[in-house]
Amino acid sequence: MPIAKVHRIATASPDDVSGLAAAIATGAIAPAGILAIFGKTEGNGCVNDFSRGFAVQSLQMLLRGHMGAAADEVCLVMSGGTEGGMSPHFLVFERAEGNAPEAAPALAIGRAHTPDLPFEALGRMGQVRMVAQAVRRAMAAAGITDPEDVHFVQVKCPLLTAMRVKEAEARGATTATSDTLKSMGLSRGASALGIALALGEVAEDALSDAVICADYGLWSARASCSSGIELLGHEIVVLGMSEGWSGPLAIAHGVMADAIDVTPVKAALSALGAEAGEATIVLAKAEPSRSGRIRGKRHTMLDDSDISPTRHARAFVAGALAGVVGHTEIYVSGGGEHQGPDGGGPVAVIAARTMG
Amino acid sequence: MPIAKVHRIATASPDDVSGLAAAIATGAIAPAGILAIFGKTEGNGCVNDFSRGFAVQSLQMLLRGHMGAAADEVCLVMSGGTEGGMSPHFLVFERAEGNAPEAAPALAIGRAHTPDLPFEALGRMGQVRMVAQAVRRAMAAAGITDPEDVHFVQVKCPLLTAMRVKEAEARGATTATSDTLKSMGLSRGASALGIALALGEVAEDALSDAVICADYGLWSARASCSSGIELLGHEIVVLGMSEGWSGPLAIAHGVMADAIDVTPVKAALSALGAEAGEATIVLAKAEPSRSGRIRGKRHTMLDDSDISPTRHARAFVAGALAGVVGHTEIYVSGGGEHQGPDGGGPVAVIAARTMG
Amino acid sequence: MPIAKVHRIATASPDDVSGLAAAIATGAIAPAGILAIFGKTEGNGCVNDFSRGFAVQSLQMLLRGHMGAAADEVCLVMSGGTEGGMSPHFLVFERAEGNAPEAAPALAIGRAHTPDLPFEALGRMGQVRMVAQAVRRAMAAAGITDPEDVHFVQVKCPLLTAMRVKEAEARGATTATSDTLKSMGLSRGASALGIALALGEVAEDALSDAVICADYGLWSARASCSSGIELLGHEIVVLGMSEGWSGPLAIAHGVMADAIDVTPVKAALSALGAEAGEATIVLAKAEPSRSGRIRGKRHTMLDDSDISPTRHARAFVAGALAGVVGHTEIYVSGGGEHQGPDGGGPVAVIAARTMG
Amino acid sequence: MPIAKVHRIATASPDDVSGLAAAIATGAIAPAGILAIFGKTEGNGCVNDFSRGFAVQSLQMLLRGHMGAAADEVCLVMSGGTEGGMSPHFLVFERAEGNAPEAAPALAIGRAHTPDLPFEALGRMGQVRMVAQAVRRAMAAAGITDPEDVHFVQVKCPLLTAMRVKEAEARGATTATSDTLKSMGLSRGASALGIALALGEVAEDALSDAVICADYGLWSARASCSSGIELLGHEIVVLGMSEGWSGPLAIAHGVMADAIDVTPVKAALSALGAEAGEATIVLAKAEPSRSGRIRGKRHTMLDDSDISPTRHARAFVAGALAGVVGHTEIYVSGGGEHQGPDGGGPVAVIAARTMG
Repeated sequence: MPIAKVHRIATASPDDVSGLAAAIATGAIAPAGILAIFGKTEGNGCVNDFSRGFAVQSLQMLLRGHMGAAADEVCLVMSGGTEGGMSPHFLVFERAEGNAPEAAPALAIGRAHTPDLPFEALGRMGQVRMVAQAVRRAMAAAGITDPEDVHFVQVKCPLLTAMRVKEAEARGATTATSDTLKSMGLSRGASALGIALALGEVAEDALSDAVICADYGLWSARASCSSGIELLGHEIVVLGMSEGWSGPLAIAHGVMADAIDVTPVKAALSALGAEAGEATIVLAKAEPSRSGRIRGKRHTMLDDSDISPTRHARAFVAGALAGVVGHTEIYVSGGGEHQGPDGGGPVAVIAARTMG
Repeated sequence: MPIAKVHRIATASPDDVSGLAAAIATGAIAPAGILAIFGKTEGNGCVNDFSRGFAVQSLQMLLRGHMGAAADEVCLVMSGGTEGGMSPHFLVFERAEGNAPEAAPALAIGRAHTPDLPFEALGRMGQVRMVAQAVRRAMAAAGITDPEDVHFVQVKCPLLTAMRVKEAEARGATTATSDTLKSMGLSRGASALGIALALGEVAEDALSDAVICADYGLWSARASCSSGIELLGHEIVVLGMSEGWSGPLAIAHGVMADAIDVTPVKAALSALGAEAGEATIVLAKAEPSRSGRIRGKRHTMLDDSDISPTRHARAFVAGALAGVVGHTEIYVSGGGEHQGPDGGGPVAVIAARTMG
Repeated sequence: MPIAKVHRIATASPDDVSGLAAAIATGAIAPAGILAIFGKTEGNGCVNDFSRGFAVQSLQMLLRGHMGAAADEVCLVMSGGTEGGMSPHFLVFERAEGNAPEAAPALAIGRAHTPDLPFEALGRMGQVRMVAQAVRRAMAAAGITDPEDVHFVQVKCPLLTAMRVKEAEARGATTATSDTLKSMGLSRGASALGIALALGEVAEDALSDAVICADYGLWSARASCSSGIELLGHEIVVLGMSEGWSGPLAIAHGVMADAIDVTPVKAALSALGAEAGEATIVLAKAEPSRSGRIRGKRHTMLDDSDISPTRHARAFVAGALAGVVGHTEIYVSGGGEHQGPDGGGPVAVIAARTMG
Repeated sequence: MPIAKVHRIATASPDDVSGLAAAIATGAIAPAGILAIFGKTEGNGCVNDFSRGFAVQSLQMLLRGHMGAAADEVCLVMSGGTEGGMSPHFLVFERAEGNAPEAAPALAIGRAHTPDLPFEALGRMGQVRMVAQAVRRAMAAAGITDPEDVHFVQVKCPLLTAMRVKEAEARGATTATSDTLKSMGLSRGASALGIALALGEVAEDALSDAVICADYGLWSARASCSSGIELLGHEIVVLGMSEGWSGPLAIAHGVMADAIDVTPVKAALSALGAEAGEATIVLAKAEPSRSGRIRGKRHTMLDDSDISPTRHARAFVAGALAGVVGHTEIYVSGGGEHQGPDGGGPVAVIAARTMG
């Protein structure tokens, strides 16, 4: 019976893979079992954040040395931006084989890749459906059948560039936008709705091209999506609970109603029977509310031309969450189209259950 | 018997004094009773933050219309920087006369101004002693005799400019620094040590020119200092508890050990017998730890050349505090030399006691 | 016969009106003759730049002391952003009476104000026509009949806020946008096309709502527009050459084809028979090319999430222009919709002619 | 007889080595002849600029594939920051063998590496002397005997980290500083004085530990230094004119007296008998004057807490230089301790001579 292990490894810079290398060298991590690596890297988390690509290149060099071509199957999801006191780190998700049976159900990890997305499908229903199908495959890979047992879905999705738009146009197709930055939001939004569709959070007949990045009343409580230039398809990681897995770890999730709503984290910890502490793993989304207000009070994040709104939001939400869990090695990412309500977002907690 | 009132007024921009004007117009605030106004304004809180001066100019225009020359006695302390979700606002401290006796002791407010500080005394023992004496005068004005009853001291202190350094040199004197930015830190540091001296937190024989902005093991748990170009002396506001004041409001304080240490806020609320809520007033300092770590984990605030470390710190600490008190109209300021321990800082809470 | 004087006055901060006050005190400037003041202030030149409003409030306080209500007729156009080596300053445009006849034609200054613009007309043909009519009135005020004699038109125009949009909707009208930031661009764009229409640079039948901020092939070679929250109508300043004015100053203009095209400045100086020097006044627009290229080479201004593209552009263009004129007290402003070609913009030079 | 070739290759991102790969594939560049690669990468050019390391890692991967271990001898000097309109690119310096004799003297390239610098020598005379000796070796490698024939010296030098300081202290040694950021300036400053010593620009008896980063009246007219965490010794590239080299390229240099002093570039072009044009290569230093003034007029670069002063300076100086040479693929780097006078700096021009 598989055991899900999550290794949180501090990094000294985006290309610092020494901690992972050491864990492999000592046998603490078996490279063949690495399914995915999430990372918080210390760039600006926006358009010109090269810390993400630098981390990916560095991780790939290390993994290829250990795994050969299989390294390219590992989902590498780097989220830029460690504003405020957030601490840069990697989360290595490993599927190990259990040598001592422990109570199931337990944390389960599933992974899927999609074929390349036709450029004209990006930000449209074609992408929504492609992601939804892949989420179902990743659930199956994780041994999860009931969507209610899924607590976090991370999707890495493609974006449009000027050349990609031209390629589509040369075939007589038209893309949803010709603006690279907008395509990032559309891709995240369509991916999130794909997750919502797969998990039954939004009905298929409520979805159409027109609602994507337009009707923000539609959202997933478990989606986390980021777009990157380096892929043409999607990489999907499903985290949930499964009777087919064992081990001490478990996962729960909630939805922050706004940037200072820390109640769902406390509730998730409580549901897991766990105490907040240094070992707690937190995965959350942060974004400034489009309303310009938090509980009725004005914020200035959207009006600051010196600091990007997402940087403000990550610093602030990370403060709120770190104040609860008591450490700063938490994964708070930005850009939350259709991922939770305006100004709030999904939050998942992984912790070792205290059996009793 | 005087009653201390604290009016929290949202602002739409640094020069938005319409809320205060309306409160005066309706009689909710009597201008003659205004002792001090603290403000969070939405600039960068650093060298070129003109939102502070703009707010001061706007407030002075309004107050002079109501109070004439007496307006210049009002301590106007603007703290720039509403990073993250902090909401710009004014805190108007008013001394009203009670018409219905309520339980003493209660929140008391005292104010003092100092003469101009000789430029060569800035950042040295001369400034420490001048501030200490003024703090004692402000305590007396507040009707506070025991330093233990002081919970927050806000000092606005001067800085050096190239011209001021030259003026001192023309007299054969030498200043502690010729660097304007450094003089701001030295002035805040010497002022904080002056507060510590007045409150008995640091012994006089432990103090000398050499320890100022050098031995950060010396600090006040109740100091909040900011330096400004617009004054040559000091403006000092003491907040504490006094048997000579009545009214529903009370104040307590604690010291955050680091940026995510929210326990002292909860303790202060508990000590006041108050619940966190929309009416809670929080005054805190935020700064990135010089150690580069928070509870052993690396932070990147000091290495980010795009966002000033103090902006990171304010956003993050404001998130931690807002997560506890449940609203974002809180006063978190930066630049904490000798104001609490490295990476942490004083925090004070003002709330209406629930009588029992 | 009137003489146009242009006083360039350095400032030490946005609210530093001491130089202007001194010039009035010594009689160098007669307040009654002040028609307009342009300023470069040291904010970020973007949404949350309070240095502009701070300068305006400070100038108004000074002018009202000298001129009373007539002060409100003075056009105050503050352009934020002194990136790179640009030096903050005011340009005071004064209409003096000549006591010694000098060769006409000479620099002429005209000014006009418009009524409030209905919110639903902003960014549409209603605004284009309103501005065009006012430009013609300002030309008349300057004694200029031939549009070819106009070399620079500065327009300060309104923007939409959420409340203004609602006010229009309450009347059953719809605005061009409900996005404040977009409304700033639309207002500048429509104003620029209004100038182009008045000056005969664009034919009326080429104009429609649909081309505003869409067909950038339509532009004025003499327009400079900035939008501000503080007015509901328009303030317009026309600078040109008129036989009805005398004095040493003259003006010429050109169009920079891109950010490093300094030839037009040299040509303008040459046309004026003037040498570049400390007294040369330069008024220019800067913006990053939407193509992402300058003479075929990629620039990174549009992809930098840490520094606003307009800040990059002002620093860079100011460097190119200062390298030619030999000083840094130049007026380079951003946001150039329909003001010159993509990535380039109008540039005007005012200098004392060397008569021969 | 060797021929110096300089290939300017545009990049689409820091890790874009496709242009260099293509040039190698077509035979335009022979990898074995690559002595050094300078790069302008699009990070912030400050502490947390990972674009430099990302470019270095990407170049090393490519070069090792072609050259094996010899790749590690190639000097890779990445300068972060393409503010304003600067265009990211690599400058590949190749030593080719001439197959058709052309007029000597011509551009010559020499290279040297130093042993690791003891940490306690950094920023002190030990570093000055080590760099001076290596500059002489690089001159010899370039076939240059007269220091007057040297026109540009690029040094990449080490910095101190907390661990390095501790290592020195464990040996009973003390370092010049324990502050990483300060160590970068000290290392650049000592390296520049090492260049000045080797080139006879500063006499040895004028040098001591005390003048390093203190007496800025001492400087080199040909030094360009950058510090990096990735090396413990120094990499040195000397560019000059030598009778031992042939080919069309030649180099000349000048010193900009301030940020807008473009005369030296024109003079250098003139000395080379070359016209400014797309092929002109420009290497320059930019920094804000510590005086806070340019030709007597205030600049705001040192007071802007939102944009680093070096970013302002690069954008501005790049504008001034691009306005002269007519393209934006120029190499302007920051951080100029002892590299030219305050606010100015060395500038070198490489161009093909027009023979006559």
